[in-house]
Amino acid sequence: MLKQKLNIIKIGGNVIDDEKLLTSFLNLFSSIKEPCILVHGGGKLATELSKRLNIETKLVDGRRITDLETLDIVTMVYAGLVNKKVVALLQSNNCNAIGLSGADANIIVAKKRQTDAIDYGFVGDINQDSISVNTIKKFIESNLTPVFSPITHDGNGQLLNTNADTIASVLSVALSSIYDVHLYFCFEKFGVLKNVDDENSVISIIDKNYYEELKKLAIISNGMIPKIDNAFDAIAKGVREVVIGHASQLNELINNHAGTRIK
Amino acid sequence: MLKQKLNIIKIGGNVIDDEKLLTSFLNLFSSIKEPCILVHGGGKLATELSKRLNIETKLVDGRRITDLETLDIVTMVYAGLVNKKVVALLQSNNCNAIGLSGADANIIVAKKRQTDAIDYGFVGDINQDSISVNTIKKFIESNLTPVFSPITHDGNGQLLNTNADTIASVLSVALSSIYDVHLYFCFEKFGVLKNVDDENSVISIIDKNYYEELKKLAIISNGMIPKIDNAFDAIAKGVREVVIGHASQLNELINNHAGTRIK
Repeated sequence: MLKQKLNIIKIGGNVIDDEKLLTSFLNLFSSIKEPCILVHGGGKLATELSKRLNIETKLVDGRRITDLETLDIVTMVYAGLVNKKVVALLQSNNCNAIGLSGADANIIVAKKRQTDAIDYGFVGDINQDSISVNTIKKFIESNLTPVFSPITHDGNGQLLNTNADTIASVLSVALSSIYDVHLYFCFEKFGVLKNVDDENSVISIIDKNYYEELKKLAIISNGMIPKIDNAFDAIAKGVREVVIGHASQLNELINNHAGTRIK
Repeated sequence: MLKQKLNIIKIGGNVIDDEKLLTSFLNLFSSIKEPCILVHGGGKLATELSKRLNIETKLVDGRRITDLETLDIVTMVYAGLVNKKVVALLQSNNCNAIGLSGADANIIVAKKRQTDAIDYGFVGDINQDSISVNTIKKFIESNLTPVFSPITHDGNGQLLNTNADTIASVLSVALSSIYDVHLYFCFEKFGVLKNVDDENSVISIIDKNYYEELKKLAIISNGMIPKIDNAFDAIAKGVREVVIGHASQLNELINNHAGTRIK
């Protein structure tokens, strides 16, 4: 049977931090006729709040070390402030959004990361078995649009901080069992660029062979490599395509007229 | 047709602030077999966070004046920190809780309070028409337990702060159209006391006549009067009973063995 199309769209921190870009993105998002899921990060707000409260922000390889105080902050900012603001804005566009953390309806059960070289603190790792696919399906069938903040739980009462890119990828893989999932990473760049200084040099398609070549030529930067590795991993596990592009071009990304497609 | 029983349970700020009491309350709550809705306030956390951020807390008659900065704080604390912690704890007891603000699934649409003598800021007023009864019914029929934070929205993208007692009462009235609603206000007192210094002097039943008498004799304190007025109002609009009692006695309150019943 033909699976129904489902768009899973992740917006990066820079979109959250830019009120104008966020509003125009949410307008575009609300106009999509197909079922959608939105996944958001937190942007600079959590770091700013930590600063105002004199709590040190520790990052290792771009990942936040989440002690208990920091967990409270990301829970407040991601699952509270950002999630509810985004939901209220979507509602004003007649998009029937429902804000979710992984604890809500037991929808994402994570495992606290084991301490080895680095103690990441209250960080949750997930895989496709962590996702309650049927609950999400029920929401979508009720015409609700799930909006995920990157907070999960361990099922034993402990909230955990989980990377938003990872949530978007893992949701995509899990939901590929019943949907034709297209995964979009929207940020403030127009896609993967051949020349970082030229916004017009967007590479429109990257397959495995081309990716190896681009890496050899050092055209793809270090920050992009884990994103693209994750994209290929998601595709290997059943996701139809992964598209990387600018939040202001959401329609074009969906209609195959912009961004970088990874196949 | 006989309506199904629904328990709507409000916990006060003092329960939120007392980790031990909160945990034991949530254990009791999770053991209830009938459908339940939980409504929580925020306790002292919002005021404490405001203090740490050097934002002045302004209260008029116990109501928080909600400017934009304060709205961000209550959204973070109520809809983020408190709501998600409560949901995660309920999940650990196998209670399939789902945390909601009024914006989520468009479930409570409020009106920003008009400015007259006092400008309360971003405070939302609601009545029974504000409630999306069918959405709540769907959640309950899916065996989900809604957990409401006292944040609503106006439908035009603006979040609003709404009194949690009011949310519990208005939800109860609205849901009385399809459920046999019993409303419980749980806090750190054993009920309405005949003698404020004697915890054993709980008045078990208050009807309209007795209430007038108690007011005349100044036995009921000023703080309790709006609560009881609201209770009688809820009953006049279809709620079966309103019970006031201690959070540690939830089972006894439900089984008619403790607290003050208003009929």
